[in-house]
Amino acid sequence: MKHILLTIAYDGTNYNGWQRQPNGMGIQEKIEEACYKIFRQNLKVIGASRTDTGVHALGQRALIHVDTNIPEDRIPYALNSVLPEDIVIRDAKEVCEDFHPRYSAINKTYYYQILNGRFPIPQYRKISAFISSHLDIDAMHEAAQYFVGTHDFAAFCSTGGSAKTTVRTIYRASVQKEGPFVTFKVTGNGFLYNMVRIMTGTLIEIGLGKKEPSDIKQIILSKDRNLAGKTAPPQGLTLIEIQYEE
Amino acid sequence: MKHILLTIAYDGTNYNGWQRQPNGMGIQEKIEEACYKIFRQNLKVIGASRTDTGVHALGQRALIHVDTNIPEDRIPYALNSVLPEDIVIRDAKEVCEDFHPRYSAINKTYYYQILNGRFPIPQYRKISAFISSHLDIDAMHEAAQYFVGTHDFAAFCSTGGSAKTTVRTIYRASVQKEGPFVTFKVTGNGFLYNMVRIMTGTLIEIGLGKKEPSDIKQIILSKDRNLAGKTAPPQGLTLIEIQYEE
Repeated sequence: MKHILLTIAYDGTNYNGWQRQPNGMGIQEKIEEACYKIFRQNLKVIGASRTDTGVHALGQRALIHVDTNIPEDRIPYALNSVLPEDIVIRDAKEVCEDFHPRYSAINKTYYYQILNGRFPIPQYRKISAFISSHLDIDAMHEAAQYFVGTHDFAAFCSTGGSAKTTVRTIYRASVQKEGPFVTFKVTGNGFLYNMVRIMTGTLIEIGLGKKEPSDIKQIILSKDRNLAGKTAPPQGLTLIEIQYEE
Repeated sequence: MKHILLTIAYDGTNYNGWQRQPNGMGIQEKIEEACYKIFRQNLKVIGASRTDTGVHALGQRALIHVDTNIPEDRIPYALNSVLPEDIVIRDAKEVCEDFHPRYSAINKTYYYQILNGRFPIPQYRKISAFISSHLDIDAMHEAAQYFVGTHDFAAFCSTGGSAKTTVRTIYRASVQKEGPFVTFKVTGNGFLYNMVRIMTGTLIEIGLGKKEPSDIKQIILSKDRNLAGKTAPPQGLTLIEIQYEE
């Protein structure tokens, strides 16, 4: 039995999020179907992160326990040959038995892309949120620095999450112009339910001048979800990387 | 009667190209439908460029002759309110009576995006072509310089075009890395049927080492379509700008 860690990119547009579910199609289920076609075994694909409906990934990770002779560097090609074109396995690597894709992770990085201009660009409508009003990028970047550190992020968490604690550590956060987008990029040891999207919604209010950058500090301390901004729409969010210890 | 020049962006994925047609849906027809809803007149939308099925635009132009009191700066908002989300009017500007969107154009610019890496990125599958083999970008850029100038581009033209002459002038051409893409960008006074896609297919052969950059010179001189590369797939191509004299 081998323990294989997959790195996965997907366009989340046509899925009901990562997780297998009774109503709707999860990306997890599609990969389990592909594993059955290639390995002829009913495998459980254990994801590192539960992305929501419409959220994308460049570097989702998932573990499979599988009995196979296919060399690890051929596994992506084998699985991709039977996966739909909106899911791509980018890497497969053998890991030790006690590895867990979620608990062994040391950090995760997301970005949130905002298209900021007079009119939307149709080609990017499914990988970004659109805002026509002027955004003050410097103020947003300044505000994002208040996220850095270990804080109780209860104010940045939707109800419905299963986390035991709302304390998380953010290592890096930035807001900058990248091509046609204003991009919020954030790295932390973990994220609460909807946390990056609520952070983004709050940064947008700061960008629009409705809040001051330093308000982030008070919002964190309040632990009050009502003081933070709206949950930004899912299609702007992409899980870009999950890192593990070597 | 006003003469209004529209600037249009679209995601061409779900259309059978720009042109209205008996079988399938053209972008032109969608805009004519939108014009009817807003202006209550059956207008002909006269496009500057006939993009093919699956080809995109950021800066297509089209002319309408319309009797309206809607100020020109409000026309994009009015039309966008009834257009599908994959077509966006970015600008509307009154022009003089003898203006023609095609014949008055002084140049057009396209880019072709190639995703070059071990695996495709699903988010970009509809706005780029994918090539996994290594591409020599410097050789491709060098090759592209042979396109610059006034040449008979018969070798870079698919049959089925309606052009009277196959002579065109290319003002600028470049191949460079832009984010995840290798991007071929080309500006000319006009382009033959499939010309940019055949140029791209030929540059790809050069990038793969199957042809030398200087081969472009011979291919142009030959006027033989069989000597140029394959027609690159449509989804990598975007019409980005059409310029007119002030």
